[in-house]
Amino acid sequence: MNYDDLPHLRITVSDGVASVTLDHPPFNIMDGGMLAALRGFVHRVKNDPDVRVIVFDSADEEFFSAHGDMYFLTDMAALPAALEAFADAAPGVSVPDDVNPLEALNLELRELPQVTIGKLSGLARGGGNEFLTYLDMRFAAIGRSGQAQPEAAQHILAGGGGTVNLPRLLGHARALEVLLGGELLDAELAERYGLINRALPADEIDHFVSDLAHRIAQVRPEVVAAIKKVFEASVPSADTAVYQLEGREGMGVYIPEVSAFAQRQLAAGVQSDRNVERDLEATLRAL
Amino acid sequence: MNYDDLPHLRITVSDGVASVTLDHPPFNIMDGGMLAALRGFVHRVKNDPDVRVIVFDSADEEFFSAHGDMYFLTDMAALPAALEAFADAAPGVSVPDDVNPLEALNLELRELPQVTIGKLSGLARGGGNEFLTYLDMRFAAIGRSGQAQPEAAQHILAGGGGTVNLPRLLGHARALEVLLGGELLDAELAERYGLINRALPADEIDHFVSDLAHRIAQVRPEVVAAIKKVFEASVPSADTAVYQLEGREGMGVYIPEVSAFAQRQLAAGVQSDRNVERDLEATLRAL
Amino acid sequence: MNYDDLPHLRITVSDGVASVTLDHPPFNIMDGGMLAALRGFVHRVKNDPDVRVIVFDSADEEFFSAHGDMYFLTDMAALPAALEAFADAAPGVSVPDDVNPLEALNLELRELPQVTIGKLSGLARGGGNEFLTYLDMRFAAIGRSGQAQPEAAQHILAGGGGTVNLPRLLGHARALEVLLGGELLDAELAERYGLINRALPADEIDHFVSDLAHRIAQVRPEVVAAIKKVFEASVPSADTAVYQLEGREGMGVYIPEVSAFAQRQLAAGVQSDRNVERDLEATLRAL
Repeated sequence: MNYDDLPHLRITVSDGVASVTLDHPPFNIMDGGMLAALRGFVHRVKNDPDVRVIVFDSADEEFFSAHGDMYFLTDMAALPAALEAFADAAPGVSVPDDVNPLEALNLELRELPQVTIGKLSGLARGGGNEFLTYLDMRFAAIGRSGQAQPEAAQHILAGGGGTVNLPRLLGHARALEVLLGGELLDAELAERYGLINRALPADEIDHFVSDLAHRIAQVRPEVVAAIKKVFEASVPSADTAVYQLEGREGMGVYIPEVSAFAQRQLAAGVQSDRNVERDLEATLRAL
Repeated sequence: MNYDDLPHLRITVSDGVASVTLDHPPFNIMDGGMLAALRGFVHRVKNDPDVRVIVFDSADEEFFSAHGDMYFLTDMAALPAALEAFADAAPGVSVPDDVNPLEALNLELRELPQVTIGKLSGLARGGGNEFLTYLDMRFAAIGRSGQAQPEAAQHILAGGGGTVNLPRLLGHARALEVLLGGELLDAELAERYGLINRALPADEIDHFVSDLAHRIAQVRPEVVAAIKKVFEASVPSADTAVYQLEGREGMGVYIPEVSAFAQRQLAAGVQSDRNVERDLEATLRAL
Repeated sequence: MNYDDLPHLRITVSDGVASVTLDHPPFNIMDGGMLAALRGFVHRVKNDPDVRVIVFDSADEEFFSAHGDMYFLTDMAALPAALEAFADAAPGVSVPDDVNPLEALNLELRELPQVTIGKLSGLARGGGNEFLTYLDMRFAAIGRSGQAQPEAAQHILAGGGGTVNLPRLLGHARALEVLLGGELLDAELAERYGLINRALPADEIDHFVSDLAHRIAQVRPEVVAAIKKVFEASVPSADTAVYQLEGREGMGVYIPEVSAFAQRQLAAGVQSDRNVERDLEATLRAL
């Protein structure tokens, strides 16, 4: 299978492992182009017999993915084109009612026959961190990674799957803290809270994840499928209706002030200034 | 809203955060008076637009809340008055059949539109620790806090919500250990087990919780409500029938020996002697 | 109750605590004999009023239980005799359709009125580690214990309850990592992942578990039963249908190559050579 035409992603396949590097400067924003590219990848790789495991990482040392596209909040006119690009990325595959592109990507990623792994070194916030929660497993580099859901401070919902996934990974108490408090979690805290599988030394994570991925790539696909099937019977994943509720609630909390505040964030350097993005928490408190 | 008439609680409201300090010497026992006061607070604050976040702590440095009232076990005649006071604390709001006051308080607290946080420095056992599990989040001070459910050693059930909540917070294995073993968990172990969100240095917990509470108080109530709604759809809380079962089982394990043993505990200094309460585990083993 | 005739197990009862030491050299393999002995014990102890708590450990310092019997994979002719011995161990107690002996043992263990505790010092892999997950609680010795599910690398399913239990104990993400990656987890990591209750210093675990077991043995059986009943209502255990699915999936992934690979493992020293068993992970990678 050839993936060279997919923008924003650098993809190599070797020994059953696809390495997918997000490469969409300046911050791997989860914008319309990135979501369409990821969806295009998902719908191609699902039929690729050469791929058993998919590892996602970032070309940017500091940012895995800064967050979703702020322009979706300031410029509603940008939405139809993004939705069309998302639809075109998987012709003939419909998205359930009330489910937005991030949620749809979540649902489609978890249907993949392959095993998906996130390797996090750098920052993942908002839609970028929600994307990580869609994957089967996640590992983060100690001293390098940071994860946060800043949406509540932006007066919106983490409505791209995060509000569905976080109580499942962290339990109600910690998920509510993360979603409402907006704190940046380092790797160790993310491990203790269950947001990642494990925090790993920064100089070991590459080897660890590569080793794990190649080991899993040797497992028979029938065994992987059997495990996932029993898991679903034992602890069912959230069904589509929960994503639809999240999608509707996400739209429901939208008010014009959200757009005005997003404008102020953009004016302050969000989505353009590296220093501002590094400490988004401070920026949001100051605004 | 004015809260000055509520006994046993010191309540201040500032910047959307209500600080509720349990102040019912000598040990903040969860007795009829305390439960009525807490219920009264709940039914007043639920309509207070000035309160977005509620932080519970204790006026006693050593005790958050020692446990439920031992006299409920020795003197059945004390129960009707307590139940009446509890009913009067929220006129017209009925308690489901088979649900006792602690369970009812649990169910009513979780219906609050506000976000509730427990700040624990000192000891919380039995009904005092169960109360903590009713809250949305819990933080504990390293080197200062201790949490335990001594009920099994007292020949009764942790029947005030604890048997419902602990397997949800800790999983079956650890919850069974805590409920049957009766060990006092320090802050670090409580964090590892999931009984609290996080263990914090004793000299940082005040600042941490205050900062978190005030940050959450800035979140739009609509966003808080949307998050809680999606959480419930994704990972439903225990329904009332589970509390009713716990309530019935709690009554079902009562035998006269329970009362006699409670008498011996009282005679040994439980509920009156500070040294005895500090190491209740040793007291129970010795009896 | 007398247990002296049960092979492979050393059983003593004292103060309400049964100590069951697996003693089936060379590695406490979960073979037909061991499974029949364990089932025999379960169906005798369930009616023993002198036993309130059961602690399982191993007579072998290095191995709690190496894994299931590789000869079940190489020699299908061995199966009927094992199934017959398992049936004879509890005359008149039928096993549900599609449920294999390990799964049946899981279901029967969790129906016991007693509290079961695993004390792990040494290695537990495959069926040996699955057995540990059947127990109410598990503790492991720091620096001594290791737990792994090597089945995926052996081209089969952890089909003896492990695929049902691990997502419940660890969550999907970590359970998938453990089942597919096949890594040996030391005590600390096992605690962080939730595979055990707690990692304990090797020189303290005996005292800790004995103390806990004897404390629990003092709890009224009615209270234990009430707690377990409320737990089931609050967080239900997997129902029999999930075990049946696992059983069918386990059979479904069987192919002749599984047997051939098992032959090679046996030839390489698996199930006979102590050095090979110590580092089974390296053996499997080398084959």
